[in-house]
Amino acid sequence: MARGDGVDPLSRAAAEAADAADPLAPYRERFAGAEERIYLDGNSLGRLPVATRDRLAAQTAEWGELLVGGWPAWIDAPTRTGDLIAGLIGAAPGEVIACDSTTMNLYKLVCAALDARGPGALVTDRANFPTDRYVLEGIAAQRALELRLFDGEPDAAALPCGRGDVVVLSHVDYRSGALADLGALQAAARARGATLVWDLSHSAGAIPVELGAAGAELAVGCTYKYLNAGPGAPAYLYVAARLQPELRSPIWGWFGQREQFAMERDYDPEPDIRRFLAGTPPILGLAAVEEGVRLTAEAGIAALHAKSVRLTELIIALHDEWLAPLGFAVAGPRDPARRGSHVALAHPAAWQITRAMIERAGVTPDFRGPDAVRLGVAPLYTRDVDVWDALDRLRALVERGEHEEFDAAPGRVT
Amino acid sequence: MARGDGVDPLSRAAAEAADAADPLAPYRERFAGAEERIYLDGNSLGRLPVATRDRLAAQTAEWGELLVGGWPAWIDAPTRTGDLIAGLIGAAPGEVIACDSTTMNLYKLVCAALDARGPGALVTDRANFPTDRYVLEGIAAQRALELRLFDGEPDAAALPCGRGDVVVLSHVDYRSGALADLGALQAAARARGATLVWDLSHSAGAIPVELGAAGAELAVGCTYKYLNAGPGAPAYLYVAARLQPELRSPIWGWFGQREQFAMERDYDPEPDIRRFLAGTPPILGLAAVEEGVRLTAEAGIAALHAKSVRLTELIIALHDEWLAPLGFAVAGPRDPARRGSHVALAHPAAWQITRAMIERAGVTPDFRGPDAVRLGVAPLYTRDVDVWDALDRLRALVERGEHEEFDAAPGRVT
Repeated sequence: MARGDGVDPLSRAAAEAADAADPLAPYRERFAGAEERIYLDGNSLGRLPVATRDRLAAQTAEWGELLVGGWPAWIDAPTRTGDLIAGLIGAAPGEVIACDSTTMNLYKLVCAALDARGPGALVTDRANFPTDRYVLEGIAAQRALELRLFDGEPDAAALPCGRGDVVVLSHVDYRSGALADLGALQAAARARGATLVWDLSHSAGAIPVELGAAGAELAVGCTYKYLNAGPGAPAYLYVAARLQPELRSPIWGWFGQREQFAMERDYDPEPDIRRFLAGTPPILGLAAVEEGVRLTAEAGIAALHAKSVRLTELIIALHDEWLAPLGFAVAGPRDPARRGSHVALAHPAAWQITRAMIERAGVTPDFRGPDAVRLGVAPLYTRDVDVWDALDRLRALVERGEHEEFDAAPGRVT
Repeated sequence: MARGDGVDPLSRAAAEAADAADPLAPYRERFAGAEERIYLDGNSLGRLPVATRDRLAAQTAEWGELLVGGWPAWIDAPTRTGDLIAGLIGAAPGEVIACDSTTMNLYKLVCAALDARGPGALVTDRANFPTDRYVLEGIAAQRALELRLFDGEPDAAALPCGRGDVVVLSHVDYRSGALADLGALQAAARARGATLVWDLSHSAGAIPVELGAAGAELAVGCTYKYLNAGPGAPAYLYVAARLQPELRSPIWGWFGQREQFAMERDYDPEPDIRRFLAGTPPILGLAAVEEGVRLTAEAGIAALHAKSVRLTELIIALHDEWLAPLGFAVAGPRDPARRGSHVALAHPAAWQITRAMIERAGVTPDFRGPDAVRLGVAPLYTRDVDVWDALDRLRALVERGEHEEFDAAPGRVT
């Protein structure tokens, strides 16, 4: 197939041309390390921004110099960083706070919703990310509530929930890459009297998220994927401003307390988003979040999403041309409007193929059971030629049967 | 008063001699930053070890280079770091894990104890650290349990608890510096059928803690004080090995799941201490904990404690000589066997005196309401001359009335 200009759109020359015209191309140089490897797992752990490396060194030195005198400057890091994140997910300043892990934040918000509006069933899709399911399973066990797991993708017309229920949905499915219809699902939950908590871990930073416009009430997300804040960096949570007075964290800690340092009082939570803090905030980790989010905001979600669509479309086009004949199938949406920033390619030997790509081809995808090679594009640093080269190498190694040298039993993967 | 060698034990010459003979003196050079200031607030936020500064830079670079391929090495950081901490608190390998904040960890252990052995009352002293009280207050509200606050120091002969109750006590009181009798209180709780959770935040790293020998069951603690892991660094929790099978965290997350990456299963927690993990561990923060704990272990708790006693004794001796006539009083134990590594000096103008010391005298103590100047000694880096100079400057500024130039209303302090 050739375009009007005579360039085959599936040729490496076309990928090179796309990179040359890419307004986001300069961002690739804003990352440090791992220059050689084609990294298609930024949807699991993002790369290291140069600004983050430098900021972490400066933040460490600042601790050493200011010691406890640094706290007046550090104490607002959760809200300051939260406000930056808010700008990426369609939230207003004061609606997001950076703290704890995604798991902890989900626990806090689900308990808060149940306490304010429950009791009711806890609802999610059976295919949702494990930690989301486990959190709900634990709360259901503790409170003797029904855990209602539904099959298939979330469907606004048939969302199985009612008054007092708390529903947890991922905006982008961690395996298939399916992008949920946030507005329709939010409206469906509201119409049924249920409270919906969004997990934005696999969308924020690459895909537009319009929490405010959708009337979303609660959300959580991680920062170590597209927000490039490093392994196990602090997560965030969102509580719509109108809900903040009525919702309380189940975990009462001194950073959620009004007039924190008047220590002789009963617990009386901050009136705002800070009531969802608990322990002392991790200042180094928050500095990394701040830098990663700032870089993302500078590039702009619209530009990032446009590039994400171009790259995932290229994966699918090359798949159809090169990989389908080798037994692969796209295990997710073909419509880019229904897709996040990764593509899952199913193949019976997905585990071995993933190992062979990592160990022989200099390409890092990841494996997601039972049978998918997951290819993520991080539009801040993934190039068109990276996608082209990765799929070219993938094709070549499967054609040569190189993956058959690897053990078929999946070991520990992340 | 003069010693047999003719040197006044309260003279600066005596302090210099003590430093010259100090086997821990070389450790002072293992810290970076803040050379000029006399820092007597390491009991709030410890200093920056050189090894930590270097390790954080290396850990950051490792993230950049290894990316998701770093996880096989990183995933054991919570247990590896926990095992190092175990060596400082009289626990066995496998009984401690580094994760989350002290507040979160306390929440997890109190809920776990209630689920396994409750319901019962939640018991603590009214003067316990605020976040400990708030956590209990929150759980009591959630579960409709009695919150029983008692006055005065914990007394083994009169510990107000019974079967099914959960008691939370600090090993060292954050204000008075009083050191609880861990063995006697643990035995008292056991005899009454209550479960005791220790907060080691103000003792670990400076004071011997013998959890195993005392038959202690549960404990939490922070790492940013005497363990020097930086502002908001990950905390830790201890669960005696024999209790691990029966106790479960209320927060079920994917890092507590057995066979974590077999994602298609119901929650089935790890059989060991890892069941108290929840979300993705903070790898940078844990690296700082590892370095701080390693440095502490290298110096050895016995040597650190001996020096801590020498320095707090010096504070009290100089107080008696210089400060008592100026209206100060020791607001804590005079018996070093009953004392942690800080001394609280009460004075009606404590707030202004603290500000004057920080802003005029180059000395950092801290203020603890309502009326105490808290002086902490961190035996890894505090010198005898630091104590001598700090109290000399304190005496001089109060004699001159310099503190009276400062506003009497306490503002935000940390």
